[in-house]
Amino acid sequence: MRRNRVRDLLAQDEQVVTGWVTTGSSYAAEVVAHSGVDAVTLDLQHGMFDVPQAIACLQAVSTTSAVPLVRCRSHDAADIGHLLDAGAYGIICPNVDTDEQAQALVRACRYPPTGRRSLGPSRGVLYGGADYPQHADDTVLVIPMIESVRAVENLDAILAVDGVDAVFVGPTDLSWDAGLPPTSATVADELADLLRHIVDRARAASVPAGIFSLTPDQGRQFAEWGYRLIAPGTDMMMLRAATERAVAVLRRV
Amino acid sequence: MRRNRVRDLLAQDEQVVTGWVTTGSSYAAEVVAHSGVDAVTLDLQHGMFDVPQAIACLQAVSTTSAVPLVRCRSHDAADIGHLLDAGAYGIICPNVDTDEQAQALVRACRYPPTGRRSLGPSRGVLYGGADYPQHADDTVLVIPMIESVRAVENLDAILAVDGVDAVFVGPTDLSWDAGLPPTSATVADELADLLRHIVDRARAASVPAGIFSLTPDQGRQFAEWGYRLIAPGTDMMMLRAATERAVAVLRRV
Amino acid sequence: MRRNRVRDLLAQDEQVVTGWVTTGSSYAAEVVAHSGVDAVTLDLQHGMFDVPQAIACLQAVSTTSAVPLVRCRSHDAADIGHLLDAGAYGIICPNVDTDEQAQALVRACRYPPTGRRSLGPSRGVLYGGADYPQHADDTVLVIPMIESVRAVENLDAILAVDGVDAVFVGPTDLSWDAGLPPTSATVADELADLLRHIVDRARAASVPAGIFSLTPDQGRQFAEWGYRLIAPGTDMMMLRAATERAVAVLRRV
Amino acid sequence: MRRNRVRDLLAQDEQVVTGWVTTGSSYAAEVVAHSGVDAVTLDLQHGMFDVPQAIACLQAVSTTSAVPLVRCRSHDAADIGHLLDAGAYGIICPNVDTDEQAQALVRACRYPPTGRRSLGPSRGVLYGGADYPQHADDTVLVIPMIESVRAVENLDAILAVDGVDAVFVGPTDLSWDAGLPPTSATVADELADLLRHIVDRARAASVPAGIFSLTPDQGRQFAEWGYRLIAPGTDMMMLRAATERAVAVLRRV
Amino acid sequence: MRRNRVRDLLAQDEQVVTGWVTTGSSYAAEVVAHSGVDAVTLDLQHGMFDVPQAIACLQAVSTTSAVPLVRCRSHDAADIGHLLDAGAYGIICPNVDTDEQAQALVRACRYPPTGRRSLGPSRGVLYGGADYPQHADDTVLVIPMIESVRAVENLDAILAVDGVDAVFVGPTDLSWDAGLPPTSATVADELADLLRHIVDRARAASVPAGIFSLTPDQGRQFAEWGYRLIAPGTDMMMLRAATERAVAVLRRV
Amino acid sequence: MRRNRVRDLLAQDEQVVTGWVTTGSSYAAEVVAHSGVDAVTLDLQHGMFDVPQAIACLQAVSTTSAVPLVRCRSHDAADIGHLLDAGAYGIICPNVDTDEQAQALVRACRYPPTGRRSLGPSRGVLYGGADYPQHADDTVLVIPMIESVRAVENLDAILAVDGVDAVFVGPTDLSWDAGLPPTSATVADELADLLRHIVDRARAASVPAGIFSLTPDQGRQFAEWGYRLIAPGTDMMMLRAATERAVAVLRRV
Repeated sequence: MRRNRVRDLLAQDEQVVTGWVTTGSSYAAEVVAHSGVDAVTLDLQHGMFDVPQAIACLQAVSTTSAVPLVRCRSHDAADIGHLLDAGAYGIICPNVDTDEQAQALVRACRYPPTGRRSLGPSRGVLYGGADYPQHADDTVLVIPMIESVRAVENLDAILAVDGVDAVFVGPTDLSWDAGLPPTSATVADELADLLRHIVDRARAASVPAGIFSLTPDQGRQFAEWGYRLIAPGTDMMMLRAATERAVAVLRRV
Repeated sequence: MRRNRVRDLLAQDEQVVTGWVTTGSSYAAEVVAHSGVDAVTLDLQHGMFDVPQAIACLQAVSTTSAVPLVRCRSHDAADIGHLLDAGAYGIICPNVDTDEQAQALVRACRYPPTGRRSLGPSRGVLYGGADYPQHADDTVLVIPMIESVRAVENLDAILAVDGVDAVFVGPTDLSWDAGLPPTSATVADELADLLRHIVDRARAASVPAGIFSLTPDQGRQFAEWGYRLIAPGTDMMMLRAATERAVAVLRRV
Repeated sequence: MRRNRVRDLLAQDEQVVTGWVTTGSSYAAEVVAHSGVDAVTLDLQHGMFDVPQAIACLQAVSTTSAVPLVRCRSHDAADIGHLLDAGAYGIICPNVDTDEQAQALVRACRYPPTGRRSLGPSRGVLYGGADYPQHADDTVLVIPMIESVRAVENLDAILAVDGVDAVFVGPTDLSWDAGLPPTSATVADELADLLRHIVDRARAASVPAGIFSLTPDQGRQFAEWGYRLIAPGTDMMMLRAATERAVAVLRRV
Repeated sequence: MRRNRVRDLLAQDEQVVTGWVTTGSSYAAEVVAHSGVDAVTLDLQHGMFDVPQAIACLQAVSTTSAVPLVRCRSHDAADIGHLLDAGAYGIICPNVDTDEQAQALVRACRYPPTGRRSLGPSRGVLYGGADYPQHADDTVLVIPMIESVRAVENLDAILAVDGVDAVFVGPTDLSWDAGLPPTSATVADELADLLRHIVDRARAASVPAGIFSLTPDQGRQFAEWGYRLIAPGTDMMMLRAATERAVAVLRRV
Repeated sequence: MRRNRVRDLLAQDEQVVTGWVTTGSSYAAEVVAHSGVDAVTLDLQHGMFDVPQAIACLQAVSTTSAVPLVRCRSHDAADIGHLLDAGAYGIICPNVDTDEQAQALVRACRYPPTGRRSLGPSRGVLYGGADYPQHADDTVLVIPMIESVRAVENLDAILAVDGVDAVFVGPTDLSWDAGLPPTSATVADELADLLRHIVDRARAASVPAGIFSLTPDQGRQFAEWGYRLIAPGTDMMMLRAATERAVAVLRRV
Repeated sequence: MRRNRVRDLLAQDEQVVTGWVTTGSSYAAEVVAHSGVDAVTLDLQHGMFDVPQAIACLQAVSTTSAVPLVRCRSHDAADIGHLLDAGAYGIICPNVDTDEQAQALVRACRYPPTGRRSLGPSRGVLYGGADYPQHADDTVLVIPMIESVRAVENLDAILAVDGVDAVFVGPTDLSWDAGLPPTSATVADELADLLRHIVDRARAASVPAGIFSLTPDQGRQFAEWGYRLIAPGTDMMMLRAATERAVAVLRRV
């Protein structure tokens, strides 16, 4: 089975940069995959698309060496299984607040006897290889998101769940849930404390931690704190910012 | 009928910035339309989409005050009519090399007796208003592209064609056709001479000139030379550059 | 944030007419939005489309002043959040039978601390404005459907749930569930009693009531009873009836 | 090969009512096909869709006994061949002004030696039957549109072209081209004269004539003059009118 | 209401062959439906498509006498209702392990008072007829899948659930769950014992049994054991095998 | 720039097997590309899809080492340029009957000064590499189809056109145009003479010849005559035949 380079990099405590696709355009996904990233995450939760577009995007990303990941919409095991069958090499799952939820997520991503994933990896076999069923459980990444106060309270238990390959922090939701101001280019001290606490606990548990950042500079700060899987903003944040910059340059005439 | 703000701005010799959409994602088109541009051009020639996606993009752009333009694929009158029926407020037509071609373009865009456009402006009426048929000929912009040596030779004749509202330069194709090196962030002197010649002739003929640029800075240079309708790069150029910048920032850790 | 005109009209006890789109065609949705309605509801439950088409329809409706609403498919919080992120300004949720279900619906539609909606309103920000996160909870309408005997029994408790902005009756399902004949152009007396009971209780609780009707005349009758948010049939009911009328006129020759 | 019921009806001088689909929604096309019409015409010229949606609509119409027709976008032989391969049982071709153009249209629709249609009727075989190649030329309808003054001048020559199975009048374009006021619910006298002239010449040549009408009543008038293939308005005209009527009924409260 | 020929055949203990569509291409679905099968099953669980493509495929299958079935993705009642509304004449539901789950499945597929399906069979009425609501419960097939050890343990209870019209075995998942080697062209003895046990119990309970097979020959073996609803492989298995055979023939040159 | 393996194989007089995709399903295209073929041809002429699906299929094929080719719909230079921009590595163009048409085809596929292709290879750069503009003319295959008596008469002139990289025979159309019976599994003697004549002339001119065949065995026969680029049937022919075989096996029970 094709190796999961993101898994390998994280195992070596190396940095992983992932693009974050919210358009559902397979061309845009392919462009991002060609831009030097290690992975491309298709965001089915807040992205403006759904499974059919995700499948086309997974194909587009598969034309490159970037690893195709998805942020699924919910804990729904059938949806998660479908995205894995479509060739996703990792599931970033929103709103995992307890170890029970993390265990359910692992079961959704693993074949029996570990889990209850149904066998039928249609595109998975094309992308991963004919021995996909034998090796998928050791290849596909299971990554619960930590994005609530409750999840932080249960963090050690979540990190201890067998099969959790990494955790991924959603600072926007976490900040909001903690009653802090919305995240922006600068991170408030209280949020910074939370984010450093999470990555410290994760590293202590030998579980790699990832995080979404609003800007590349913010992502660099997170990396310095120990985060290893970094999303430096979404495709549409970048497109909007770049277009606004272009307009500003031209308006100066 | 809803006024065409791009037409108004050009009539006042004001600068017009247009986004340039090549993905066909209606969400991306909407994001660009919200980024401070005056217009959004949907590129059906080199963009990775076709008419159905263009229609959705036209709807998306129509949620904003940005003016929806299209760069059509060819001189085909039926395709041009279809895009106008879908609510495009301007046609940027590639490869117009002669005044005969420019006249044919005008005929494709205008109703009888001026032209041969067929009456049935389905979305045009929704976007433009019930009096669309009466005012479309005075509202919709007809913009031939000047992107070959032959077109430059015939420039004065093209500019003199009744109904040509502006011209739009494609420096990449023009440079290539002139046997010059491909355009890049810096414009070679010989190409610069050509580009200044075109805008000078156009201004002399009181026809606004537009141009595609590879970067915002290049676009500003063109604006200083007298170009008024500027595309400061495509959406995917911007996304790729922004992603590459983000990766570079993160790799520095 | 852009105001929700449907919320304003209901607050003033004014009538609201909503189109009801079941095709998933963004052009059809735009046509309906231009037909004098106050809102357009995209029906993801019985409509022949899914989320990707709904997103395009939301864009199409957003070209007009008609308010974009959705009838979601189920109580699934992730689906509801996704539709809100796509710019829906109201959720009409089927089969809400108890106050617990109504509370869960409110939580799905509201940000913390009121609810558990995840922050990431991609198109919501484009449609609503940059301050969407701050005002969404006071803008977006939460509208449980009353369409079972059990829901009627629990009506007062549902109406009392904090965050329920209106209720919406599904007379077809309600009639069927009550063991009454299917609804038709004329409303059976027993059903009429139920429908009048619901609107009376809602008005007593100062909660606006809406209803689906099979014909405009039936809708007018419901309005006279006190319903304020009226869907006068689906797009495809209207298209079929209009085509049948046209055929009948022509067959008379 | 499955018979073409529209051809049979026209051969018997019977009336044929065709729906007119402009949305590209296959569900809407199926609804129209179930509404009592004899045929459904998919309008690729002014409709807000393109070939992929047309193929899905052809499938939807094929679930019924209504005959699937298309109004193609132009005289382009490759496009026409593609639509026929997709199972269209008739081509209504816009803007046929001369007998040469009519001959070219016939060649685009017929196999050698009569024409130059390429053999490969993918869905044609599924819909028509395994003997499609042998009988297609005698089954598929070739219908040039008469919608300009020039076409009227050349009418007899067009009607005399071997292989022209019917003509179809576009009164809107014809009126506009003749310098007459746009068509409306009432037909101006000068336009009426033109329309009666066309149908009279067609009947004299034993070529059935069809026409697009803006309302069913107008269609009935045309039928009384001798037109036999009648489109009583588009789907979206009907949906808009029906929605406006519904709103009017409800506003009366 | 249009009869369900699969139900009739199973009632007579006749064999039913079903195509198994995993592409979501409506043209491929139509081709399969024309290939002599009694039914076409659209696989939304492991197929590389989603509901919008399923709706188009249901339309395509409805052009033929083959019965449209779906394998849904999960037990989700809203999804199942939506697919039924789209005209599916049978639901093959994965992973039904207990009689409680089978009862929930029946409730999702049946109208009140038997179940809780919501009334609004949009395409169901087009395909089934105007009396769809009255007869759907007796027409639409409810078919839980037996594909785990637990399901086999609970088999008699599942078979006894009122409203279960047939069961369908997934030998791949069952084999995997039982700790047996993955299924292949030859069936291991232990799996054979399980499969024969299931069909024997089903026949004893007068409930028809179906099964997925990897090859037609395997399917014939299953038929000899008493299975009556047979899927002889997926569309993409067949396409891949046929292409590989073609390549092998050509490589011999 | 990524090499064109089909070009290399043909230069070495090696056999090339190409899949032939008519569904437009990107998943089916990916499956075919994984089945041992050297190339996958997307058939836009008789396939039931259009450019948007072709782009997704090109992405899917690009996940493998199979070379992506297209059979375009017509000689239209804008369409051809668009497909090349989308990453097609070869154009198989229907109905090239004269050397003038072959020259026009070459011009459509080559950049200035050789041709008039417009510069903007959006996906071409992603698939081919950043130096695509410099090497595309030497990489992309230009392949006119010989499928009429007239083309055979003009064969030597066509073969002599500079830039024609191969010719591809359409035996079905050729047979039909020559007044011979439709092709079937066995090739009639007169057609065989024509087909051998073509390949002999092509080999004499050192131009590789390809051909469409209805079955793998027929393809092998053609290969023995000297054809080197062989399509052994379409995807849907194979799927239909395989399904019919499966049904036959099962019906024997």
